[in-house]
Amino acid sequence: MSVLVVGSVAYDSVVTPAGSRDETLGGSATFFSVSSSYFTPVSVVAVIGDDFQPEHVELLKAHSVDTSGLDRKPGKTFRWSGIYSAEDVNARQTLDTQLNVFADFSPTLSAEQRRTPFLFLANIDPELQLDVLDQMDNKPKLVGLDTMNFWIQRKNSGLRSVLKRVDALFIDEGEARDLASEVNLVRCARHISSLGPKTVVIKRGEHGVLLFHGDSMFASPALPLESVVDPTGAGDAFAGGFMGYLAATGDLSPEGLRRATVLGSVMGSFAVESFSLDRISSLSGAEIEARFRAIIDLTRYTPLEASESLPLRDGR
Amino acid sequence: MSVLVVGSVAYDSVVTPAGSRDETLGGSATFFSVSSSYFTPVSVVAVIGDDFQPEHVELLKAHSVDTSGLDRKPGKTFRWSGIYSAEDVNARQTLDTQLNVFADFSPTLSAEQRRTPFLFLANIDPELQLDVLDQMDNKPKLVGLDTMNFWIQRKNSGLRSVLKRVDALFIDEGEARDLASEVNLVRCARHISSLGPKTVVIKRGEHGVLLFHGDSMFASPALPLESVVDPTGAGDAFAGGFMGYLAATGDLSPEGLRRATVLGSVMGSFAVESFSLDRISSLSGAEIEARFRAIIDLTRYTPLEASESLPLRDGR
Repeated sequence: MSVLVVGSVAYDSVVTPAGSRDETLGGSATFFSVSSSYFTPVSVVAVIGDDFQPEHVELLKAHSVDTSGLDRKPGKTFRWSGIYSAEDVNARQTLDTQLNVFADFSPTLSAEQRRTPFLFLANIDPELQLDVLDQMDNKPKLVGLDTMNFWIQRKNSGLRSVLKRVDALFIDEGEARDLASEVNLVRCARHISSLGPKTVVIKRGEHGVLLFHGDSMFASPALPLESVVDPTGAGDAFAGGFMGYLAATGDLSPEGLRRATVLGSVMGSFAVESFSLDRISSLSGAEIEARFRAIIDLTRYTPLEASESLPLRDGR
Repeated sequence: MSVLVVGSVAYDSVVTPAGSRDETLGGSATFFSVSSSYFTPVSVVAVIGDDFQPEHVELLKAHSVDTSGLDRKPGKTFRWSGIYSAEDVNARQTLDTQLNVFADFSPTLSAEQRRTPFLFLANIDPELQLDVLDQMDNKPKLVGLDTMNFWIQRKNSGLRSVLKRVDALFIDEGEARDLASEVNLVRCARHISSLGPKTVVIKRGEHGVLLFHGDSMFASPALPLESVVDPTGAGDAFAGGFMGYLAATGDLSPEGLRRATVLGSVMGSFAVESFSLDRISSLSGAEIEARFRAIIDLTRYTPLEASESLPLRDGR
């Protein structure tokens, strides 16, 4: 089944402990599309400026992404710049945001897009997210949502309206605490779930991901990497792997969601190994499978069989 | 097989987001002993003051801990006080340290203790750790070590001498980076391993633990808890579960080390659920097994069978 993503396409300028890049391809919809494309057909809806380079449309097309929803407008493409600290690569500081054509982004879905069974609403204004939901012909099989502190603080009621209508929320640890006004992550997830999404994915960067689904919790550690070049886009690559895997299999069971979480981690791990989409846009299936096996090796141990007891001392 | 621990016994005063406690039982050797005692016989070597309360010796004896190595000296027992932040429970600030009788701690092992097959050198002066190693009759089957920033900075060469002679190092994430002068944890672990310990356990508090052993990495997430009362002692409870399980089974294989890591996490998770040793000193075997099963449920997913392929798109 196919996936529709509505979000940003951007040119990013980043400084990380590994170096820097100016005006390199980025954006939530871009990372999500490419990541998801390894599993399933993807259609993207986003706005680009008249400076958007043909090679970057070609990059998406080379991944069989349907780019008919890239709306080219007069003006410049969205620009973001930020810096990551050496001590804590999870901590980033935004240096500059130039919305440019993104300021007037008004997503319009084609007839085909309105029937897409999997929908990812990347981190954009909750009012636009609501507008996209309203355009869908039917309730999709799965709606995933991302958001950020800015919307939690400035558009809280709009965000709450969206949350009522989504199945899965992808959210950073700190943002989850903001949204729930609660430090403890278990209580955070329960509170967020009561706002709508039955599935809550809390992203913790290099510390991995927690999946809350009903009463069940699943922890997926991030693969420790020797080379972390640029964390930009890792969250969207994660969501792309997660939703792409679900769309490819149609398996929305608790087991399916757990595997999707691990495949999200697989795709996130590639995203951080280079600037921009350099690494994640040039993967082979064998590399994806090898990394999935690396995470399996990272996390496997001999569980306790139903008939087995721990070697505890007498009388305990 | 039995475990010998050499470390501190203390009275702690702590302030945490959940409340505060004054002069409550603490110390690395205390947490380690009680945690380990659920799996295997434990002998403790530590110094206590003449103010050390009989009920606290009884608590250890109730766990069948051999307390003949508790050396009572004139003066006060070691005092530590600290405060944990609400935002980041991993970040703690020491308010006061009064070494008292611990200032002249000079561990002396009995003939029986010198033959113990499993030895844990808790966080004390590397020179004392070396002295204990020199007292052992034979090289133990496994020597575990803990240390802290203070020794990394002040007694670096002594610490390096100890590291050459230990099998497993238990170390906090930040301390590992200090010791290795390296931010990346994979490179950190490799560097530390080159200093001696073939097994490096990097503790990340609520983010779990990374085990490095040879070329293999294992990630064990911490169980997300609804109630974290006091993180004091969690690291020593972890080491106690880890080494206690290894001593109980004698299984030092890579598989055994992985399971020991999970059981360390089990014991650490109990330690943080109360002040002092309230929770960890009153566990039943059924509770330990239930929590192990909870972590198994937290971490399980369907791995990729050898014959199975991921649902990747054509041509990839």
